Amino acid sequence: MLEEKLANYIHEGIYPFHMPGHKRQSIVQWNPYEMDITEIDGFDDLHHASGILKEAQERAARLYGAKRSFYLVNGSTCGILAAICATAGRRKRILLARNCHRSAYHAAYLNELAVDYLYPCITEAGIQGQIPPESVRQKLEAAVCAKTIADIEAVVITSPTYDGVVSDVRAIAQITHEYEIPLIVDEAHGAHFGLSPYFPESAVRLGADIVIQSLHKTLPSFTQTALLHIGTDRVNEREIERRLDIFETSSPSYLFMAGMDACIRLLEERKDSLFEEYQSRLSDFYRKTERLRFLKTTGKSDFSKKEAYDIDESKIRIMTGRSGLTGKSLYDLLLKKYRLQMEMVSGGYVLALSSMMDTAEGFDRLAEALLEIDAACSPEEEENRRGSWKPEQLYHEQEKVLEIAEAQDAPREELMPEAAKGRIAASYLYLYPPGIPILVPGERITGGVLSEMAKCKDMELEIYGLSPKGGIEVVNFS
Amino acid sequence: MLEEKLANYIHEGIYPFHMPGHKRQSIVQWNPYEMDITEIDGFDDLHHASGILKEAQERAARLYGAKRSFYLVNGSTCGILAAICATAGRRKRILLARNCHRSAYHAAYLNELAVDYLYPCITEAGIQGQIPPESVRQKLEAAVCAKTIADIEAVVITSPTYDGVVSDVRAIAQITHEYEIPLIVDEAHGAHFGLSPYFPESAVRLGADIVIQSLHKTLPSFTQTALLHIGTDRVNEREIERRLDIFETSSPSYLFMAGMDACIRLLEERKDSLFEEYQSRLSDFYRKTERLRFLKTTGKSDFSKKEAYDIDESKIRIMTGRSGLTGKSLYDLLLKKYRLQMEMVSGGYVLALSSMMDTAEGFDRLAEALLEIDAACSPEEEENRRGSWKPEQLYHEQEKVLEIAEAQDAPREELMPEAAKGRIAASYLYLYPPGIPILVPGERITGGVLSEMAKCKDMELEIYGLSPKGGIEVVNFS
Repeated sequence: MLEEKLANYIHEGIYPFHMPGHKRQSIVQWNPYEMDITEIDGFDDLHHASGILKEAQERAARLYGAKRSFYLVNGSTCGILAAICATAGRRKRILLARNCHRSAYHAAYLNELAVDYLYPCITEAGIQGQIPPESVRQKLEAAVCAKTIADIEAVVITSPTYDGVVSDVRAIAQITHEYEIPLIVDEAHGAHFGLSPYFPESAVRLGADIVIQSLHKTLPSFTQTALLHIGTDRVNEREIERRLDIFETSSPSYLFMAGMDACIRLLEERKDSLFEEYQSRLSDFYRKTERLRFLKTTGKSDFSKKEAYDIDESKIRIMTGRSGLTGKSLYDLLLKKYRLQMEMVSGGYVLALSSMMDTAEGFDRLAEALLEIDAACSPEEEENRRGSWKPEQLYHEQEKVLEIAEAQDAPREELMPEAAKGRIAASYLYLYPPGIPILVPGERITGGVLSEMAKCKDMELEIYGLSPKGGIEVVNFS
Repeated sequence: MLEEKLANYIHEGIYPFHMPGHKRQSIVQWNPYEMDITEIDGFDDLHHASGILKEAQERAARLYGAKRSFYLVNGSTCGILAAICATAGRRKRILLARNCHRSAYHAAYLNELAVDYLYPCITEAGIQGQIPPESVRQKLEAAVCAKTIADIEAVVITSPTYDGVVSDVRAIAQITHEYEIPLIVDEAHGAHFGLSPYFPESAVRLGADIVIQSLHKTLPSFTQTALLHIGTDRVNEREIERRLDIFETSSPSYLFMAGMDACIRLLEERKDSLFEEYQSRLSDFYRKTERLRFLKTTGKSDFSKKEAYDIDESKIRIMTGRSGLTGKSLYDLLLKKYRLQMEMVSGGYVLALSSMMDTAEGFDRLAEALLEIDAACSPEEEENRRGSWKPEQLYHEQEKVLEIAEAQDAPREELMPEAAKGRIAASYLYLYPPGIPILVPGERITGGVLSEMAKCKDMELEIYGLSPKGGIEVVNFS
């Protein structure tokens, strides 16, 4: 039973280097049933906030410097759907970073949008880098030439990425505004930005028009809680409200909303000391792991300016490098031997998420485990080559044959991968986390993609989007 | 601050005759932060359930007799969006009960559906009655004549209604299936159905193809938790999955899912005794209130077979009748003098929601309060006439000029009500609760609607959908 298993898990002593950012520590002491009420007298109505929920949202806006902020109880998902659907009208066009979360693609599906992609560069370390501002300009100039510019109603990027790569939001916003197009930033992984000198500035203060943040990912708030910020006058607030009214439940949880309020209040009152102490623990950790010989924890200095405008060091990227370990074997070792649960595993690295709620003991356990594992590594092992696999190919540029809605609404059939080569994908293929599509509906299934899928399987990384039998859905116009 | 206000509210001693159905009583003792994890090893993934969440959903399916059940963490809202968007393709047509929740209209907006309406009858007591099966047949026959039948891809009704009126789902399903059209039943207010002989059978066992239930409304589960059941082979499960993937957060709350699991388990293990004891407390209540002279609590015997196929007596409808009280004055008296918080107030009645979690003391407090209020009533009072106002007009048949999406996507302007007469509504007007639209985008704003809005204002019932200045959004093609 789920509830029993969860209740037991608490006592297993496994340390959470993963979401949610509260790290299972209470910032307030509540009985969840007692706090869970509904829109009764005195408790306002999220969909028409005029009292206590209006004030709570105004406090969030003040904290982040937004023109207006909305509490979201269906995660960043509903914020991204609302932001894109409110700005890009039906059958219009958007310029979308190809490493966006699937919810951005879903918005394109719902509004039958045509999509042009911005591809992030791939870093030396094999992770997806920033969206260079000049590539945004190039794409918009190309749209001017193609006479599609008038149809582009939004530019959408993700910054920071799941891995912590930050793009130059200020420069990108300046460019999109030259073309009078609003910039939507999926800052789901950066709710801790803009609150201290230790982490990058939030997109809200860098000129982005709409910014969506998951509170739960990096701050002490319940899973599924998020914020949508309106940053500028380029956004029609009424259209945002209308879309949130559609995508968000009409019975929002007061437990969630009170949890958001508690989180925002904690930051208002104590953010300076909380971030300072957190930064000190985090720096200690990075200092200790400088001694790693084969494994490597990467920070700002490991990325060139071309690869990343900035790096979020709250996300701890542990590269297997020449350790002879694959990402998966490191991940398993950390979990099984050291009882440290990581957030994510990829071919050549694992990702640990830290937050202000992490303890010095937690950081020490991770540093010591890594040093111990590293000491036992010999770089000559046979496995070595597997650990060096990089996912460049996985996220390289694909051939778009149909728009997303055309492909998803088309008749489909299921084929085994070998038979699907050359056909058009009818559904998404992706690794989760992070949930970024390897293949989007409407894209051609190439031999390259198929062989990389096989490689992921080799690395014990699970590909989502295949049928239980391992089949791929393809468009079938016959 | 919201969290402080909530924490204080617990100690105010106000009894909850409203949602959620757990009535703020814990069915398990949890620290919400400790239970709130994410998709880590061993805890499955709601969007691709194959382990513990698959089993949990299978248990829910067994309990209700469904072919397959889905946990929903964004309330019935996302279930209704998914059900309608998965069955009725873009720019197709649905037959929709006019008293459906706004989320059904939102689905029509998203898929640009054409909508034909089924109007419920209005009962003697002035509440919305059942959808008569013969009216479903008439509408489908009319569609055959109009040659639109091939476009109708779903029939959608709400049963029970917010007020507890149950339609003859079995007969309606038989009719829609004659035309090979699936029936979607919004059973959000009936998650307690089909589990005991004391309440009506669930639509799941009466032939409905998709049924959506809010667990939190009438059972001990957290606000925002719901189930979508697939009842028959007429439904493409894959399309439902695809839509839930779009409308539901990619970070579902384990606190919510564990709460659903705890609720389902409680029912599996103890539903017979829990429902028996509940029914006994509820019958006691109705027996005591038989002595009311002017106020009246209504049950099955107060509705004709034509008005309601069946009645859900867990919802306590307290009619002001000839008491001289308006719904609002009764509601305020119960709250302020007796500290009993009702679920809803309308012109001539208030609604108290009960559940298996209500105590004998709670029921006694309500019964005694009503008897005391009733004893103080004199039916000759001046206010008398106001209390007899019935909302028939509010929900009568409106003239549809444009489809929902046509009206919502059109240019709009805001006018004060008097200037809006004769124009086409661009947004919804409704009372909340229950959130059933009085006016749907695309419908003509008549003098009748405007005068009824004024009446609602007189009764201190708040109309949603007006701008802060009191304006109405209308379509503006000029």
